[in-house]
Parts: sequence; structure tokens; C-alpha cells
Amino acid sequence: MSAEALHFVDEHLSRFRDELYDFLRIPSISAKPEYAQDTRRAAEWLAERLKDAGLHVDIHDTPGHPVVLGRWDEAGPDAPTVLIYGHYDVQPPEPLEEWDSPPFEPTERDGRVYARGTADDKGQLYMHVKALEAWLATEGRLPVNVLLLAEGEEEVGSEHLVPFVAEHAEELACDHVVISDSNMFAEGMPSVLFSLRGLAYFEIHLTGARSDLHSGQFGGTVANPGNALARILASLHDDHGRVAVEGFYDDVADWDEETRDRIRALPFDEDAYRDELEVSTLSGEAGYSSLERLWIRPTCDVNGILCGYTGEGAKTVLPNRAMAKVSFRLVPDQTPERVGELLRAHVERVVPAGVRAEVRTLHGGRPWRADLDGRLVDAATEALEEAFGTAPVLQGEGGSIPIVSDFEEQLDASALLVGFALPGCNLHAPNEWFPLENFETGIGALVRLYGKLGS
Amino acid sequence: MSAEALHFVDEHLSRFRDELYDFLRIPSISAKPEYAQDTRRAAEWLAERLKDAGLHVDIHDTPGHPVVLGRWDEAGPDAPTVLIYGHYDVQPPEPLEEWDSPPFEPTERDGRVYARGTADDKGQLYMHVKALEAWLATEGRLPVNVLLLAEGEEEVGSEHLVPFVAEHAEELACDHVVISDSNMFAEGMPSVLFSLRGLAYFEIHLTGARSDLHSGQFGGTVANPGNALARILASLHDDHGRVAVEGFYDDVADWDEETRDRIRALPFDEDAYRDELEVSTLSGEAGYSSLERLWIRPTCDVNGILCGYTGEGAKTVLPNRAMAKVSFRLVPDQTPERVGELLRAHVERVVPAGVRAEVRTLHGGRPWRADLDGRLVDAATEALEEAFGTAPVLQGEGGSIPIVSDFEEQLDASALLVGFALPGCNLHAPNEWFPLENFETGIGALVRLYGKLGS
Repeated sequence: MSAEALHFVDEHLSRFRDELYDFLRIPSISAKPEYAQDTRRAAEWLAERLKDAGLHVDIHDTPGHPVVLGRWDEAGPDAPTVLIYGHYDVQPPEPLEEWDSPPFEPTERDGRVYARGTADDKGQLYMHVKALEAWLATEGRLPVNVLLLAEGEEEVGSEHLVPFVAEHAEELACDHVVISDSNMFAEGMPSVLFSLRGLAYFEIHLTGARSDLHSGQFGGTVANPGNALARILASLHDDHGRVAVEGFYDDVADWDEETRDRIRALPFDEDAYRDELEVSTLSGEAGYSSLERLWIRPTCDVNGILCGYTGEGAKTVLPNRAMAKVSFRLVPDQTPERVGELLRAHVERVVPAGVRAEVRTLHGGRPWRADLDGRLVDAATEALEEAFGTAPVLQGEGGSIPIVSDFEEQLDASALLVGFALPGCNLHAPNEWFPLENFETGIGALVRLYGKLGS
Repeated sequence: MSAEALHFVDEHLSRFRDELYDFLRIPSISAKPEYAQDTRRAAEWLAERLKDAGLHVDIHDTPGHPVVLGRWDEAGPDAPTVLIYGHYDVQPPEPLEEWDSPPFEPTERDGRVYARGTADDKGQLYMHVKALEAWLATEGRLPVNVLLLAEGEEEVGSEHLVPFVAEHAEELACDHVVISDSNMFAEGMPSVLFSLRGLAYFEIHLTGARSDLHSGQFGGTVANPGNALARILASLHDDHGRVAVEGFYDDVADWDEETRDRIRALPFDEDAYRDELEVSTLSGEAGYSSLERLWIRPTCDVNGILCGYTGEGAKTVLPNRAMAKVSFRLVPDQTPERVGELLRAHVERVVPAGVRAEVRTLHGGRPWRADLDGRLVDAATEALEEAFGTAPVLQGEGGSIPIVSDFEEQLDASALLVGFALPGCNLHAPNEWFPLENFETGIGALVRLYGKLGS
């Protein structure tokens, strides 16, 4: 029974929050080498809290940031084993000037806590830690065997986690993988995910003349990598919002009518969504609704461009280099490897004469589709309904958690993705936040979930 | 007679160089507010050297950087008055890492002096100062009445010089304007300019959603300003290298066959030019040679682009803003005002739905075409032939000196543009340099020029 554990959560909620805020104060920005020590510090901090909760913990070094692995396996051979996965690294906070409070100083406003990592993913990961603590503190045991695996490279492509999982496949053997790194469909509407998009992230580097040149003394006679980059980036879409890279849609699976019906049935207000984003109109691939564009259709977005002089004033330079970061969100059955091949061929085809192009792969992850039949989704449905007072909906997720497919394949387990953030939580953007109410209700839901999986 | 003055130049050349290097050490970067004090310091330094040479000097404050005005008017009412124009401000030195020696520490290598401003324009301006000094030190007088006007805002559009000239038109009354802020056609081939291109410089700012967004959670449903900017910039050219802004060529004058023949007759090696720039092929507007593309045809170049995340690693951000600096080189009879109107209309027409665009005018200058008949060009031709041992050629100049047209109109004077830098001097680029030999020979040519104009 989970009553004692749930009571424990109520009693200790204030402490849980204080601990989380300490976690959030560590700037574990995995993308930036200068934050490597902080990223490690976040791993060590998390390991200590797992020990405090009653788990056995190892910190595994990798060529990148370490993997934290907590374990409790005394539920017996008949109880299922659940691998809880999360990540303690965060996105870079830039642009800093757009934050209303410092990104690494958690600040409560209007029932929300603002800080980088509140939603993605320290806050949600820590909810699992506290749910485990609640069981162990009150019952002296967990209803299931647990592995808690937290990595520090999710935001940079989980490069070293894939080989880690392969090497430790026996030790990581489990029945279910549970991940909280996503949103509920809306406030008060808990959800379980039926899909994740994958990711293929590249940098395109162009080089023109031997150096920057005077735009008057040379302008008109040599190709300008800035103009050339614009032509290449513009060529990535057609006039209907479709990706114009040859072969890009060859591997895109058509979704069944049941799924599309389920998406259409969700109470999604396109006008409210548009207004919340403060755009005059929504856009995207012709022929699809916004939710379809987000969940079951692939994209191509510029993530950054840098070329020439970008400071104050007018520098009349003809730049000799230009760079763009470009990423694609993928859907089943696309793979980042194939998309990389197609992009390279496309850039080769369209790059103007007199400019050299190089396409560098930064990282990628495969898309994922849930197995919706079975004990895992049933238990989650019951736990969420009890905690939130309403049955969860099934939804897709436009973001990527690259490791999910790898877990399922390498560990022969089924994955459950159940998240507690909300749309608009500003993941990967300034002023990331998490609803304080969901921190509490979500821990309760997880306490129940473990109980149901173990019964 | 100029023999004594020429001898004086030989005798004092080493001191002239040392003085110039002091001038070059002052980082008078007019585009950057944090260098305002240094820019003023350069003006004050120059004023002192003009006084040392024997001129009466005033520093005129403007709302921007000051105007230095030297004067010597004792040649009598029958002697012509020559206004020498130059500028003491310089371009920003970025990217700093590409300089082989510090941009503000003049360094001699292989018969060249490397530093920001050596060619553009401190070095060439200072040659005039020293030619005047040579006359005054040896003859006690100048052959012509002289006004030497040096501004500190040429690199940012001479915004305050135009009203200054208008306000001081009487005081600045002159017969000729002489400017050395350009190249010779080639080493050993002095030249006089028959044209300058104008400039129209803009920033295009795009805004999409309320803030940066997660490219997974929102990608596919809202317009991406980075992609939109690429489409806008790509739309500025057609597939033949022509500017595709509607109406852009309406004001472009066709040049006479004599000018085009003169251009074709110049010994210009397209292959060597291409190799020197280290590009696989030259490019530009179809149907024109490189020299025509540089001198008598307009251009559109991206000068800078900034959008989203440009640091290390993969940030999966859907940016909400994008900015490009874009400039056009203009030819007679285009005007920056008209080009600005056309660009605004074009951007309005092509900006994708869901993105707001703003076009900001940074600065502009009209193109110029020389009056080749008369005493001014004759005197320059003789002076250059005597100094360099070969008659000068007539050439165009792809760069812009916005004030030239204003001088001619407001002062009813004719302008002579005679420069001593060389192609490849890296103006506006890293490793700007000036040939030491031309510093000496050029001062000699200017000593002769003043003598001929006064005789």
C-alpha cells in the first residue's frame, strides 16, 4: 500500500523542493567544455541524494560526462525490474538577457519555479528520486526492483550512453523503462506518450576567398558565403513548408487512422496556441494540423547562423566564411544517418560555385513509437487517474529522447514516457519553468505507479 | 620649383614613417562607441602634426567624431585653392585571430607595413601632410592655397560631414578636391579614378514567436526567423547573379563604349586575380568582366548574419529572431534613398507569414563619376608620370567615398581621386598593409602635384 508513502511526500515536500533548488543551482551545461566540472558536480550531488534515499550508487566515468547508476534489487525475482532514466545535464541558458531571473537561481513566481533544468530534466528526474525515498522511508522496501540511470549528455546527443548501455546490458536488464522528461497535454490533463521525434543535427560551414574582403573593392566578383548560405538554407524547404531535400520523405511512415483520429479528438485550440506564441499566423507543412506537424511529421529548422560582422554599426566586409546550425526532427522510420547522407548530397548539389561547403554531424537520435498494449501503460493510466483525478490522454511529443529506442532494443524492455511539465514551460529557451503543483502531484503519481507495477 | 621639397622628403622619410606609426597605434574605430576617446585622440594627434607642418588648425566638434580642418591661404588670390580630404577613423579590426601581427602595432614585413589604417586611410592622408610640410619647410610657402579636412566618420557613413560641409561652405570654398583613399591599378602602375561606387547599407531584423522555443516541442508549427531570413536573402539575387530587387536596375546608367573599351584594355589577369583570392572560380553578374563587375555594375552583399545559437555544440533552439547586415554598392545614377525604398518593398513582399520584418538604414553614399577634362587631371597625370616613371591609367573604384559627390555639389569644385595603395592591401580585412615604397614615391608625387596646380 502506498498510503504511508504518499503521506511522507506531503510531510516532506518543502524539503524536497529545497533539495531540488540546490540541484538546479549547479550549471551542468553539457554542451560547454568550461562547465565540465559543474556537470560532474551535478552527478556527484545526485549520487549523494540517491544514497540518502537508500539506493546503492555508482558513478561510471565515460569519455564525456559520467553516468550515475542507482540500484535497489531486493524486491525479489518475481517483482518486475524498472529502469528509471533521466538526465542531470541542461541546455545552455543563452540568451541570458532574456531571463527575468538568473537561470541558475531557482525563483518562485505565481506557482511556478523558474530555472534552467526545472522541467528538462532535473526537476522531473528528482521527482522519481523522492518517490523512491518515500517508499523506502515508510515501508523499508520498494514494490519493484529499481535501476535509476541518470546521464549527463542528453542535451548533446547521449553519445557515450549508447555504448554504456551496450556494455552494461546484463547489469541493466529490466522489464520496463520509465522516463519523465516530457509534458502533460495541458494543465490538469496528464498524459502518456505514444511517440517521440528523432533528431539529426548538423553544422554547415562555407568558405569563400582567402580572407574577409572589402565589399567595395571586391564586391561583385567573388561568391559571398553569406549569400551562398542563404541560398542553401532557403533551398531546404519548398513553398508548401515541406522539406525539399531529395529523398527526405522516403522513410516517413504514414500513421494509422486511429492515431490521427486520436490526435484530432484532443482539445487543442489552434488560436490560443498561436496567441500564446505571439505570432500572427501558424505555419508549417501544408495539409497537416499543428499537432500532426508537431508529433507525426518531420521538420527542418535553422538553430543558428553566424557570418561576417554582427557587431554595432556598418562594417563593409565581404565575409569569407559562414556557418549555420541546422537540425531535423525525425519521425518513424527515418534515421539520422540517412538524413545526414541526404543533406550532404543536397548541399553538394546546391552550393554556388566559388564556395566550399562542409556538413558536420553534431548529433542525432532515432524517433520512437510506443507499444501501447500491456501492463505498463495500464499501471500508468491508473496511477495518473488516481493522482490527478482524471484519466490520462495519449499524446505525441515533438522533442527527442535519443536513448529510448536504444533502451528498448538493447534491454528488450518496453518504455513508458510520462511527463509532468506543461506546454509553454520554455524548455531550451529563456525563463524555463515547472509548475510547483505538478511537482507534488507528480511525485504522488510516481509513488502509485511503482506500487501498481509491483502488485 | 619642387626640387628642394623633394630632397626634404628623402632626408626625412624615416621620421615621417615613425610619425605615421604613432598615428596608426591609436585605435580610432569610429563604429564602436567604446573607442570614441581614441577616435578623438587621433583627431588631436593629427591636428598637432598639421600645426607642426605650418598650417592653422581647428578641431570642429560634431554630434559624432570631430572634423579636423587645417588651412594655409597665403598663396594669393590667383592661386587655386585645393581641399585635401581624408579620414582618420578606421574599420573595426575583427576577426582579431586572423591578424599575423597586432592591428594597432605597425609591423614591417617584406617592404610592407601592416596595421589597420595603413592604406585606409591614415597612411595616405598622412602622405599629404608630409608633402605640405616639405613645401613649407623648404620654400616657406605652398604653391596653392590649401584646406586639409580630415573626418572621423568615413567608415560609418560620414553622417555629420555632410551638414558640416553645408554649414561651412563659404569657408571651404575651393577649386579642387584631392583625395587619396584608393588603389593604384597595380604595382608600378599609378592611376587616377574615373568613378566610385556608392553604398546603401541596411540591417534586416526578423522577429517570430514571443521568445526562443524548443525546436522539438514547437518545430514545424511556427515560422522560423532563421529559415525566413535565408529565404529573404536568397531572394535578393536571381540565378544569373543579378540583383532581384524589383526596380533595382532602373537607375543604372549604361556606360559609354569608350569607358568600357578603356576597361577592356587594362592588363587585368582574371586567373591571377582568382588565384590570389584563393577561390575556385570568380562569379558575379552574368555578361560582365570582373573589372566591370567591380567598377560599373552594382552589387548586393551580405555583410553579416546573426541568428539563434552560434556557440559550441548543439542547442536545439527554434530562434525567435534573426538579423542580417546587407549592403549594396551603387553606380550612377542610383541613390541610397531609392534603393532603400526598393529593398523595403521587396522584403515586405517576400517575408514569410508569421514573421515580422524591419529594414533599418545604417548608412549610404552616392556613386561618383569624374570630370576627366581639365587642369586637375592633367596636373595629376604629369605628377604621377614624373614620380613613378610611367603615365597613370584611368580606373574605376569599387569602394565608396560618400562625401565626394557632396563636395562637388556643395563647393562647386572638381574632385581628383589619386590613391597609392595596391590591390590586395586587405582594406576592411585582417592584415591590412601599405607598400613602403609607395609611401615615399607617393609623397613625391603629391609634392609635384601641388607644384603643378600652383604654376
